[in-house]
Amino acid sequence: MPERVDDIGEFGLIRRISTLLDQEGIRSERVAVGIGDDTASFLPRSGYELLITCDCMVEGRHYLPGKIRPYDLGRRAMTLNISDIGAMGGRPLYALVSLGLKPDILVRDVEEMYRGFLVELNPLGASIIGGNLTTSGNGMFIDITLVGEVEQGRAVRRSRARPGDIILVTGYPGQAAAGLQLLLKTPDDSKILEHPLVKIYNSPSHRAPLGEAIAKAGCATAMIDTSDGFLGDLGHICEESKVGAELFKEKLPVSEALREAALRLERDPFDFFLGDSDDYELVITCRPQDMAKLRSVASRCCAVPLTEVGRIVDRPLEITLLFPGGERRPVKISGWDHFRLSKNSGSGV
Amino acid sequence: MPERVDDIGEFGLIRRISTLLDQEGIRSERVAVGIGDDTASFLPRSGYELLITCDCMVEGRHYLPGKIRPYDLGRRAMTLNISDIGAMGGRPLYALVSLGLKPDILVRDVEEMYRGFLVELNPLGASIIGGNLTTSGNGMFIDITLVGEVEQGRAVRRSRARPGDIILVTGYPGQAAAGLQLLLKTPDDSKILEHPLVKIYNSPSHRAPLGEAIAKAGCATAMIDTSDGFLGDLGHICEESKVGAELFKEKLPVSEALREAALRLERDPFDFFLGDSDDYELVITCRPQDMAKLRSVASRCCAVPLTEVGRIVDRPLEITLLFPGGERRPVKISGWDHFRLSKNSGSGV
Repeated sequence: MPERVDDIGEFGLIRRISTLLDQEGIRSERVAVGIGDDTASFLPRSGYELLITCDCMVEGRHYLPGKIRPYDLGRRAMTLNISDIGAMGGRPLYALVSLGLKPDILVRDVEEMYRGFLVELNPLGASIIGGNLTTSGNGMFIDITLVGEVEQGRAVRRSRARPGDIILVTGYPGQAAAGLQLLLKTPDDSKILEHPLVKIYNSPSHRAPLGEAIAKAGCATAMIDTSDGFLGDLGHICEESKVGAELFKEKLPVSEALREAALRLERDPFDFFLGDSDDYELVITCRPQDMAKLRSVASRCCAVPLTEVGRIVDRPLEITLLFPGGERRPVKISGWDHFRLSKNSGSGV
Repeated sequence: MPERVDDIGEFGLIRRISTLLDQEGIRSERVAVGIGDDTASFLPRSGYELLITCDCMVEGRHYLPGKIRPYDLGRRAMTLNISDIGAMGGRPLYALVSLGLKPDILVRDVEEMYRGFLVELNPLGASIIGGNLTTSGNGMFIDITLVGEVEQGRAVRRSRARPGDIILVTGYPGQAAAGLQLLLKTPDDSKILEHPLVKIYNSPSHRAPLGEAIAKAGCATAMIDTSDGFLGDLGHICEESKVGAELFKEKLPVSEALREAALRLERDPFDFFLGDSDDYELVITCRPQDMAKLRSVASRCCAVPLTEVGRIVDRPLEITLLFPGGERRPVKISGWDHFRLSKNSGSGV
């Protein structure tokens, strides 16, 4: 019988996790106290601001138990926190992992989840320095706090987009949402886990290195990650910057895979693109004169596609979709409401 | 009908919480970005280490729904994090609050919980700068991450107690455990909530200012808070410092209130004192020559009783209880195991 966490107990599990982190994680010289004291401690770098965020995934709400491997669950939970640090232009440093576990969960599944955390953190030079374990009889949750840093004054806010700015987006938003729908539509088909969009949903990528490079170059006016969906997050920029936006419908990067999936799901691919989707792409605004610099920074940093999709306008909170024939259609800014609508992510307070 | 959170929705709730924090919380000049962006950000102080801890309370596991007011629940959840920062000798600065809420919870109950957080943070000059909200259909949880600071090199670890050191404890451990038992024994008696020990269980105090003063004076060799019970936490010091301890039974500060409650519960008061209890007192070790200084620091800082209860010995992991007649009885060091025994707190990883 494979070991369960209630076989080895809490302190047994802490030892196993500590050993795994020692062997497979990264050790930072700036960490004075790691796991095994009342708190962790680290020495901040002079000239840098610290960024801090937390995001929580609840079983049955943010993921489907049995439909995602523990390793991918770990990757996904860490990715969404890394994405938040990246969207500010920061570099992730230290994570605290707080788990609510059912007592009968297998030890190897917890270890695989930690390997998922590490596979995201290690390439960035970041490490897990603390956390909390508790039993949670009614369903598991994973709550991660991630600390990052950014050069003082270089953090890219949501609130500084100005009329005339260009709106850009990385990658192909909407693919994760279509992946989730495919998963929900064919719950008993195990092959569906191999569908490229289901894989994007289950183990999304973040754009943190690009966010960091953009902040360093100082060429963005605002930046956000698409954790509330493309429109929801563009809406956050509009709200915080007190501006509006015009989007060129034919320029929106709808991938071929999304078009095919939408056909199969009998849905409009633009619904997926604009709506709630856990893709963790970046929406960036910049002044027209900084576009070339931003593209150059992006191409030096990584191979992520960067598409110009619209511009910021001086009509607060109005987002308009411009069609090729000249038609203008207002779209509703709606943050996707977690307590009222079906929503796949919690929201930062 | 009083408003429920699903009446005003997630973003409505975020606005209400932001307003409450603006009006009733503290604003720190070092916070560059607070609530309302991808992450919060702050400027660390030069010459200081940052401390970071997280602790989680799960409904039904760490508190009894209906047996604690939302305001006290907020106080208690924040207190246990503050206590961890204090046990390292640090000063709390910034909190992130991650909540899993049932959709039908009343908005005013969430607001009262935040008032509970603030009543603990405000006197320390600390503030809430971020967090996360999500629905959790199966039961509520409150997961708090607290950041603090301590002068570089002044953090008091668990690992530096040496043979010959004196062991001291603040206050009267065990009272919270007896309070919990009184609550469990008379679940339908609403008057029981007014019992002094039940009040101590529901809204415990922390000793963070004392911990900070002790660290500043540099007169302790090890320090820990009693979140795993007096013996459990003294055991952590012994384990990390690779030492043992002798305790003078007649010196253990068992309060009159604890004796009375133990009588009513037909239990030995020392079981409560030594065992699992959420009192958040401090266990401190110091060299004999630093005792006078430590007492002087403590008396200048606050009116908390500080009792000498034993000494550190060179027999790793052995804790011995010394009776007035000369009898020596070994006691078992046991961390209280959350996954196997009934335990009232999660454990730091």
